[in-house]
Amino acid sequence: MTAPNIETIVSLAKRRGFVFPASEIYGGLGSSWDYGSLGVELANNIKQSWWRWLVYERDDIEGLDSSIIQNRLVWKYSGHETTFSDPLVDCRACKGRFRQDKLHDVKCPNEPSACAGSGKECDLTEAREFNLMFKTTVGAIASEDDESALAYLRPETAQGIFINFANVLNTSRRKLPFGIAQIGKAFRNEVTPGNFIFRTREFEQMEMEYFCQAEDAPRIHQEFIDGFQRWFQSIGISAANLKLYEQSKEELAHYSERTVDILYRFFPERADENAQFDELMGIANRTDFDLKTHSKKPEDAEGKRLNSDSTEDLSYFDEAKKERFYPYVIEPSAGVNRTILAVLMDAYTEKTNNKGETRVILKLKPELAPIKVAVLPLAKNKPEIVALAKQIKKDLQPAMRAVYDDTGGIGKLYARQDEIGTPFCVTIDHESLEDDAVTVRDRDTWEQERVKISELKGYLQKRLS
Amino acid sequence: MTAPNIETIVSLAKRRGFVFPASEIYGGLGSSWDYGSLGVELANNIKQSWWRWLVYERDDIEGLDSSIIQNRLVWKYSGHETTFSDPLVDCRACKGRFRQDKLHDVKCPNEPSACAGSGKECDLTEAREFNLMFKTTVGAIASEDDESALAYLRPETAQGIFINFANVLNTSRRKLPFGIAQIGKAFRNEVTPGNFIFRTREFEQMEMEYFCQAEDAPRIHQEFIDGFQRWFQSIGISAANLKLYEQSKEELAHYSERTVDILYRFFPERADENAQFDELMGIANRTDFDLKTHSKKPEDAEGKRLNSDSTEDLSYFDEAKKERFYPYVIEPSAGVNRTILAVLMDAYTEKTNNKGETRVILKLKPELAPIKVAVLPLAKNKPEIVALAKQIKKDLQPAMRAVYDDTGGIGKLYARQDEIGTPFCVTIDHESLEDDAVTVRDRDTWEQERVKISELKGYLQKRLS
Repeated sequence: MTAPNIETIVSLAKRRGFVFPASEIYGGLGSSWDYGSLGVELANNIKQSWWRWLVYERDDIEGLDSSIIQNRLVWKYSGHETTFSDPLVDCRACKGRFRQDKLHDVKCPNEPSACAGSGKECDLTEAREFNLMFKTTVGAIASEDDESALAYLRPETAQGIFINFANVLNTSRRKLPFGIAQIGKAFRNEVTPGNFIFRTREFEQMEMEYFCQAEDAPRIHQEFIDGFQRWFQSIGISAANLKLYEQSKEELAHYSERTVDILYRFFPERADENAQFDELMGIANRTDFDLKTHSKKPEDAEGKRLNSDSTEDLSYFDEAKKERFYPYVIEPSAGVNRTILAVLMDAYTEKTNNKGETRVILKLKPELAPIKVAVLPLAKNKPEIVALAKQIKKDLQPAMRAVYDDTGGIGKLYARQDEIGTPFCVTIDHESLEDDAVTVRDRDTWEQERVKISELKGYLQKRLS
Repeated sequence: MTAPNIETIVSLAKRRGFVFPASEIYGGLGSSWDYGSLGVELANNIKQSWWRWLVYERDDIEGLDSSIIQNRLVWKYSGHETTFSDPLVDCRACKGRFRQDKLHDVKCPNEPSACAGSGKECDLTEAREFNLMFKTTVGAIASEDDESALAYLRPETAQGIFINFANVLNTSRRKLPFGIAQIGKAFRNEVTPGNFIFRTREFEQMEMEYFCQAEDAPRIHQEFIDGFQRWFQSIGISAANLKLYEQSKEELAHYSERTVDILYRFFPERADENAQFDELMGIANRTDFDLKTHSKKPEDAEGKRLNSDSTEDLSYFDEAKKERFYPYVIEPSAGVNRTILAVLMDAYTEKTNNKGETRVILKLKPELAPIKVAVLPLAKNKPEIVALAKQIKKDLQPAMRAVYDDTGGIGKLYARQDEIGTPFCVTIDHESLEDDAVTVRDRDTWEQERVKISELKGYLQKRLS
């Protein structure tokens, strides 16, 4: 089973320390979220799984970590300064501000039952384009209006990869095809963020730009579409909650030849099945737009898109073909936060215990679980038991994330570990002092097994892998 | 030995793909840097070592990952809005802008040999305070002057911890003493960034706030001062290049009772030994300032510092003592980027080969090395050798970061792996196809040993640990 809706996850996440509202003690900051001690581990495990799968296990992808604030010219030539915007309308009656293309999703404040723009009193202005990039100024400048110091917070990590193409190519001595992967924060000044961590102004991306010959691009594109569906399933997302969406010609970004989105069933409570799904990841064939646009004075077919600011030509010389050209780019781009949400929703399970009470179990894949094993003393007031439990935690730690917990009775501790997705609990009791064995409890089956302390690490490693 | 100066590291870092100038193809962006495929691995290894040491191996520290953009009120009550500034002066003659307290470090553009402010033509204005926080605006607002939408990029991760104190306390059920650790980006609009990645406007912090009773604070403070010196040594920084600096009463931040900096010898080329050292990390006893200032209407001794904006009281109730109070905070705060620089400088070694040529070896601790083992085919044109090498890389990968490399002759490949700090090279030759063995070469001694392929993983794991 999966969570019935996002609200169930919001509540669990706050209660157990996965995600908190940001700036909560000051009334928050419109759909901003902080990650608690379990959330940061889950996020790191997802990021590491993605990185391992692409950068470590394959032999054709390099990593990168570029700056959030880059020279403004990056965003001029990427097209973001002119085209990265949403159409905004103001309402003269309620003073509200809305995205024109999302009016039906927003309620009119004056008419609670009506969508914005459709109420009796609604009096909308013409739409104007609102750029989604956060602006700031760099350096000590004379006035805030000084355009020379204007900079943006990156709205995507991708451009940091394109502008470093030559640096990576030269230092890695790669030949086509190869990719550059990056994980990092991005910022979009969304007019209507919401749905918990689904759409936030500050978020984290996992992006990879794969450079190849034009003729290989369609095949490689399809391979990543197939591959990432497998990857999402490998981290515990069920195939039944994933769906592909082929963008229509009208929806495609100007640089894209083909884009396929991987959707997840984020809204299972909606009656219309199509409306249950929303974007988890996009995989685009960006053609040769990116390297061309950032190259010194390249001309496209119509002789346009001159770039006199760039100091580099980012074309590639193919030694076998004796040919120089701009590589095509396949871009699989996923959100860390949406992946966290999908993983939590898919792992959410309710189970009835023998007293007829409903318990929550988070059936996370062991690889993603924030804690792999919790070591629990059955009697907190017995120093030998506590000491043994702490020693066992210490011995397990180098091999797997282990915690020691004595903050409640054993039933409560089990319930807590089930809710946060810990695959195994190890209980140290009075007998442990005699028989050098402990009880290992399985999160999903609640079955218990007695295991010798000397064999515990190997036993757990085997069951966790 | 260590690097003779930072410039040596800048050159190595660019040449081998650790660090590149950010936005380089657009002329850069004043002391901004991007991390290449080796730099991102080194940074991740440093961060993971810090995190493992604090969060995993101890039993008293929780992790956190809070937002970069928080409610503006966080920075009002932390004091950053009013006090986080540098004194700036303008020169009417050269139109330059300088930090008043660093004038002697900057050359006057009109008088190349003179310090700014000391030249004949220098005509400085009175100093004015320049706030170092980057500003931005959140949401779609009517005008850029709309104060209600003003927000800052965090200049430190610490405040994200303080404002989440109650959330973490409640979900983790901790009792004093305990800590909250966070790693993340921070931004300071420095007037004079520089010295490579030593001082940049965008940087990454590793901070931990340790909450305790007032009477335990001095002892715990000293324990972290001692502990972090050991940690820096554990990641390969030699004790001879570390030094403690006790801040004087005049230098202490207003909230601090005692602050000790750990300095590193970043500038070994300077004649004055004191000038060779600069800050790597600060460890402060912040008293009870932070939780008090963010608490709803707390009064200090003078009845000041009312906070009517906060919705929470962040005091702590001690059940044993039946007492409510604001915990003291010990803060060890280190920069990821400065740690990278110190690690690279300390690992830098030159060695003369038997032809009398000088070679660079980066003697990184295996734990920090971006690549643990490079698998190299001796003959690239022999398909069986290439296939065997790729298979060996694949078999090693789950246990250790391994790469396959065939982009040069074996001498060049060894030299490259030495320069990027790879502890071991594994060479597959013609004989390997017969005797099922490979040659393992040690980075530091250049000694070679023949090892059975079936024993290779265990052999390397043992030598890497």
